[in-house]
Amino acid sequence: MTDLQQAAPVRPAVPPRADGAARARALLAQMTLEEKLAQIVGFWEKEDGEAVAPLQGEFTVARGYADVTRHGLGHLTRVYGTRPVDPVERARWLWDEQRRLVRETRLGIPALVHEECLTGLAAWTAATFPTPLAWGAAWDPALVEEMAALVGQSMRTLGVHQGLAPVLDVIRDPRWGRVDECIAEDPYLIGTLGTAYVRGLQGAGVHATLKHFVGYSASQAGRNFAPVHAGPREVEDVLLVPFEMAVLDGGVRSVMHSYAEIDGVPVAADPALLTGVLRERWGFDGTVVADYFGVAFLHLLHRVAADLGDAAGQALAAGVDVELPTGDAYLDPLADAVRAGRVDEALVDRAVLRALEQKAELGLLDATFEDEPPTDVDLDSPAHRRVAARLAEQSVVLLGNDGTLPLAAPARVAVLGPNADRSAALFGCYSFVNHVLAHHPEVDQRLEAPTVRAALAAELPDAVVTYAPGCAVDDADTSGVDEAVALAAAADVAVVVVGDQAGLFGRGTVGEGCDRDDLELPGVQRALVEAVVATGTPVVLVLLTGRPYAIGWALDACAAVVQAFFPGEEGGRAVAGVLSGRVNPSGRLPVSLPRSAGAQPFSYLHPLLGGDGDVTNLASTPVLPFGHGLSYTSFTRTGLTVDPGPRTDGTVTARVRVTNTGSRAGADVVQLYAHDVLASVTRPVAQLVGYHRVELAPGESVEVELVVPTVRLAFTDRSGRRVVEPGDVDLWVGPSCAVRETTCRTTLTGDVHVVTTADPRTTAVHVR
Amino acid sequence: MTDLQQAAPVRPAVPPRADGAARARALLAQMTLEEKLAQIVGFWEKEDGEAVAPLQGEFTVARGYADVTRHGLGHLTRVYGTRPVDPVERARWLWDEQRRLVRETRLGIPALVHEECLTGLAAWTAATFPTPLAWGAAWDPALVEEMAALVGQSMRTLGVHQGLAPVLDVIRDPRWGRVDECIAEDPYLIGTLGTAYVRGLQGAGVHATLKHFVGYSASQAGRNFAPVHAGPREVEDVLLVPFEMAVLDGGVRSVMHSYAEIDGVPVAADPALLTGVLRERWGFDGTVVADYFGVAFLHLLHRVAADLGDAAGQALAAGVDVELPTGDAYLDPLADAVRAGRVDEALVDRAVLRALEQKAELGLLDATFEDEPPTDVDLDSPAHRRVAARLAEQSVVLLGNDGTLPLAAPARVAVLGPNADRSAALFGCYSFVNHVLAHHPEVDQRLEAPTVRAALAAELPDAVVTYAPGCAVDDADTSGVDEAVALAAAADVAVVVVGDQAGLFGRGTVGEGCDRDDLELPGVQRALVEAVVATGTPVVLVLLTGRPYAIGWALDACAAVVQAFFPGEEGGRAVAGVLSGRVNPSGRLPVSLPRSAGAQPFSYLHPLLGGDGDVTNLASTPVLPFGHGLSYTSFTRTGLTVDPGPRTDGTVTARVRVTNTGSRAGADVVQLYAHDVLASVTRPVAQLVGYHRVELAPGESVEVELVVPTVRLAFTDRSGRRVVEPGDVDLWVGPSCAVRETTCRTTLTGDVHVVTTADPRTTAVHVR
Repeated sequence: MTDLQQAAPVRPAVPPRADGAARARALLAQMTLEEKLAQIVGFWEKEDGEAVAPLQGEFTVARGYADVTRHGLGHLTRVYGTRPVDPVERARWLWDEQRRLVRETRLGIPALVHEECLTGLAAWTAATFPTPLAWGAAWDPALVEEMAALVGQSMRTLGVHQGLAPVLDVIRDPRWGRVDECIAEDPYLIGTLGTAYVRGLQGAGVHATLKHFVGYSASQAGRNFAPVHAGPREVEDVLLVPFEMAVLDGGVRSVMHSYAEIDGVPVAADPALLTGVLRERWGFDGTVVADYFGVAFLHLLHRVAADLGDAAGQALAAGVDVELPTGDAYLDPLADAVRAGRVDEALVDRAVLRALEQKAELGLLDATFEDEPPTDVDLDSPAHRRVAARLAEQSVVLLGNDGTLPLAAPARVAVLGPNADRSAALFGCYSFVNHVLAHHPEVDQRLEAPTVRAALAAELPDAVVTYAPGCAVDDADTSGVDEAVALAAAADVAVVVVGDQAGLFGRGTVGEGCDRDDLELPGVQRALVEAVVATGTPVVLVLLTGRPYAIGWALDACAAVVQAFFPGEEGGRAVAGVLSGRVNPSGRLPVSLPRSAGAQPFSYLHPLLGGDGDVTNLASTPVLPFGHGLSYTSFTRTGLTVDPGPRTDGTVTARVRVTNTGSRAGADVVQLYAHDVLASVTRPVAQLVGYHRVELAPGESVEVELVVPTVRLAFTDRSGRRVVEPGDVDLWVGPSCAVRETTCRTTLTGDVHVVTTADPRTTAVHVR
Repeated sequence: MTDLQQAAPVRPAVPPRADGAARARALLAQMTLEEKLAQIVGFWEKEDGEAVAPLQGEFTVARGYADVTRHGLGHLTRVYGTRPVDPVERARWLWDEQRRLVRETRLGIPALVHEECLTGLAAWTAATFPTPLAWGAAWDPALVEEMAALVGQSMRTLGVHQGLAPVLDVIRDPRWGRVDECIAEDPYLIGTLGTAYVRGLQGAGVHATLKHFVGYSASQAGRNFAPVHAGPREVEDVLLVPFEMAVLDGGVRSVMHSYAEIDGVPVAADPALLTGVLRERWGFDGTVVADYFGVAFLHLLHRVAADLGDAAGQALAAGVDVELPTGDAYLDPLADAVRAGRVDEALVDRAVLRALEQKAELGLLDATFEDEPPTDVDLDSPAHRRVAARLAEQSVVLLGNDGTLPLAAPARVAVLGPNADRSAALFGCYSFVNHVLAHHPEVDQRLEAPTVRAALAAELPDAVVTYAPGCAVDDADTSGVDEAVALAAAADVAVVVVGDQAGLFGRGTVGEGCDRDDLELPGVQRALVEAVVATGTPVVLVLLTGRPYAIGWALDACAAVVQAFFPGEEGGRAVAGVLSGRVNPSGRLPVSLPRSAGAQPFSYLHPLLGGDGDVTNLASTPVLPFGHGLSYTSFTRTGLTVDPGPRTDGTVTARVRVTNTGSRAGADVVQLYAHDVLASVTRPVAQLVGYHRVELAPGESVEVELVVPTVRLAFTDRSGRRVVEPGDVDLWVGPSCAVRETTCRTTLTGDVHVVTTADPRTTAVHVR
């Protein structure tokens, strides 16, 4: 058994870039058109009925695997992730296939293997970590990097070279089904955690892939694939920011285009974004891969391409290098278009060079696969479990508490609700389990992921724990409510675990293609909670959800409310630990908690909205603000100061004292917000510019210094330049974006500073 | 008594433009800075507590009227519209004031008087016409022009020179409170009806004002004043289109900037829109007026201006000429800024010249007001009533009908619902009544506007008509439901009239500042309808609303559903006429009928969304589509043909046969839709390119020829040019945008055509 934490690096020596480029050019010079196209497509050996990509059924593999790979192959698509097969058995198949490609194709180049890995490697028996929305709640980049390193090691061991994560889409509307794959509604929080993920994965020798570049999350009404209504300033100053950080600070090696069209232009056909911003401005020199079938969608959905060959030509011209998952638009249609002179072969060559350079960089041009495939891997080792547990514990957000939590040794606990005793309820949509569950329900039975019910029973060995689901996640059947009510009435406390089932394309309440028309809890879950509340027994509401729901009513009705998102395989224990008091909650909301579907889209990064009924009768605030989260201890943040007169091209150094004023140890997340008092365009009323998670013993006090690069205050001015303007900036630290617990004002001096790639992006933190 | 229809033109001879410009320059040359600033501000003599503008309470008149007008005055603001005063009495005051300005100011220039006039002149005793959303439902530009001519004649008689209408905002999200002031969700329908309004008003000698230029209706989540997320292509190809038509085809003389910020730039400070598009591209040479307090909002809300003087300078530089309603930012703050050299006086001069040219054009530079004010006016003559009745009748949309309508001589009719017997329920937010109702409830009692209850009783003299409101429009009280249910149970048919109360700033369920979080009927009205339905008595649901609501449930539950929006003073009779069968309904939906708040924003002008659950579980269609509306007769549309090979810079001539296949006379609205099959950017799946209302006797058949300018198919290409591209276009005619009853395809030939101001905008129609 390999302990992946301790294993010697499995990453091959990376050849120098210059050498890789030369070898790529040398290979290209020998290639026929067929051999070139083979290097910039994937092949996906699909099983019937296993739809795991949008409109997958539309696409048929026109040619068999042997025929497709006759001239080589760019990517092997999802070798491990779409079926519950033994990874060792699958690795054997993979090594064989790679050997065959090396031996039987003319140029002997192995395939690059890519796989999903958002919440851990998508493979049967691999660890399933918390969903990205839970990373956002934990505010701990170092721990995300540690997690990603474990994921990367697992992947590299199994011969996977590229992972299709992280998702850096900025949450704009929680009705969208893919919100659980996103980290937060703040670009900086996303950028730091996303960069940490990239570092972790790539440090283990696996290329990360930023998705979805860009705009996907801002679709109209939160509807998947709907058009994005956004101007260039919003794209630049909000949506691109996390990608910029992961490219410039994280050195990411691959980027996936988004399915979106922004203001009428599909990103997959937009050279301004895929080449202008990404390569020319940011200097990115990796590969751009297609989101699955995204090239074909230029013809089939966006209707900007006359046929698949036209679609391929437009995508190549824009800067899409590799078509995934299979070569529907690139192989025959593109070959025809090149031969007919409709597409310049130089565009093909550019993409092939990038694809070959990536293979050189990964060591694939030297790989023979004559070594033995792994025979004994542990993809869910104690090391995985430890990181999964820590991240889960840090991600649980205590939204409200009248003192009922932590539970005071209750004699009888009723654990209720449709998510109380289902392991799959702990996992996001891009977990292996929830990706394949509809086709292989047996996987749910074999999970080592204690549910909240099981974990709480273990956590409270002296209590009698009763259980009833009460209802399903998403149907109209209320016949189980009476049993739940009866159990609650007989208990000292009722823990009601509600929320989502993540799934794909309408098979879940959240997940890809599982958008919502409103933000009420799905099905009859609210009615279940209200019936249990009516018993008079104190109710602790636990939310295992992939999005924030409009649960303002529960904050009033319940004794305590715990928001856990999808906390992963150790998440049941993490939640139970928070309930028992073993774990002091320290998560902070990475998204605003909405008032209703009617308040969407919403972001805390809004300009001044006008208030108090003068311009609209609607409330201007969410039910709970971005950054909110309670603890079993208490903290004060005091004495915020800032160095005088920072220049627009420098940093702002802010210092604040954080004190644990309560009686038990706990972690606070220091959140530093800024507001540009006067600018040439409208600016948000609050904007996160730095943060730090800090553990404090009772009575302990530290000074946290945050060195904020002024580019955090940059925006796109009237002339389209991204600049930092001189002038006053209000700064504050508080328990959320909405509370100015300690404030100061600074004045940026110097000229208008045009942001460059040399500017630092990340706030440095020192604790004293 | 003056019959306004027959009156000699009251419009003074308009001096030639050249002369006006010269006289304006000559006056400007004599002016002090104070005299200049006086000409580009309004003064509003407000009463305490009568809030009729956003954040009005924030603004205090720093100086009294005599002091403000010492140097002259640009505009007198809302002389008639904010209080129930006798118009003759008010005209006397106005004439006196104008004489005083002529005599007592150095240059002797009278004030320009502006007033609201969206649903008729906003003055006590004046006719109140249907709300613009009802014009949109009537699809009859000629009738709108006739209405506006009557309104203009009333205004001119009373000494009003400029009307703050029409509203050309394209509906993007019905949650927004001001949707009732808008015409439709289609830019072409808005553009034609808006242009007709401009022609009618200006033909009577009163300058129209396009509002709100531009983007206001696309605010985030339909929240008033919230930021607009839109790119330049959406602004150009959707939001600007109606304004372009009213400027180029309608020759409008004034434009009001919108409060909106689009992608971070407030329109009031945006020279690209107010000068680049409006004046340089379209050649507009009238005045741009501020939306009330909009200049100050650059400082107070948008925070792009350091103080009021800065705000004034930015607004002037962008192209705002006249500050309304009063000179808060222009008088003292701008004077200071000019004197200190922070604002170039040339900007002031530019605005003053435009303001003086407008006065020259209106004859105000020659007016002495020594004539007698009007002493005997009829602002609600039989002519007004006839037009109000016709427009109301044409605007009623029959959404569903199982044959219950028209009512077959029922013996007992229960008329129920909170809008069944309130005249104010017939009027929009910008009606005089609903603007002042909160402060002067007595006006409601003096209206000559029969309610649906009264009108139906008159329409069915042989029936016993009982009545109960059942509930209020917007509270939680269900105590009246039982009485309504009892009356329904005892009746042959129940007519339930529900909907909105239009009002201002939270005083209504729709109207300015009355946005909605969801699209359920307000209050307990749905519960009332469902309780009445449960009696088993057939229910005819009548909706008097200022927006489309999510009433899909009612289409299933009720025998018939009638959508009347706010049909104005003759609207009760129009609805009753439809119910009795005297009027054959012919309205067509100017907005999609939404599934839920969660489906917003939505527009039928969407690109292909992907369907059938492959990309999202959400429905891609509204409950009823744009253009839908039933009749008591039936129509077929057959044999659509198009002339071969139209050029991109020409017109497409389409012909279709429309036949009344039923047994009674009725009107159909021929709706011609287009879809650009392949374009360089994404294009809508359906787009209205021409329409015509046609009255047909039973069995009658006509051929309707629509000569569609190809610029109707224009869009902004990748390089930012507005072009018509060659290629295939699908065309169809049907009973709504969603039904392709008769189709054909045409191919545009020639080069890519860059749209110019010389291109025709309006589809010509010939009926044979």
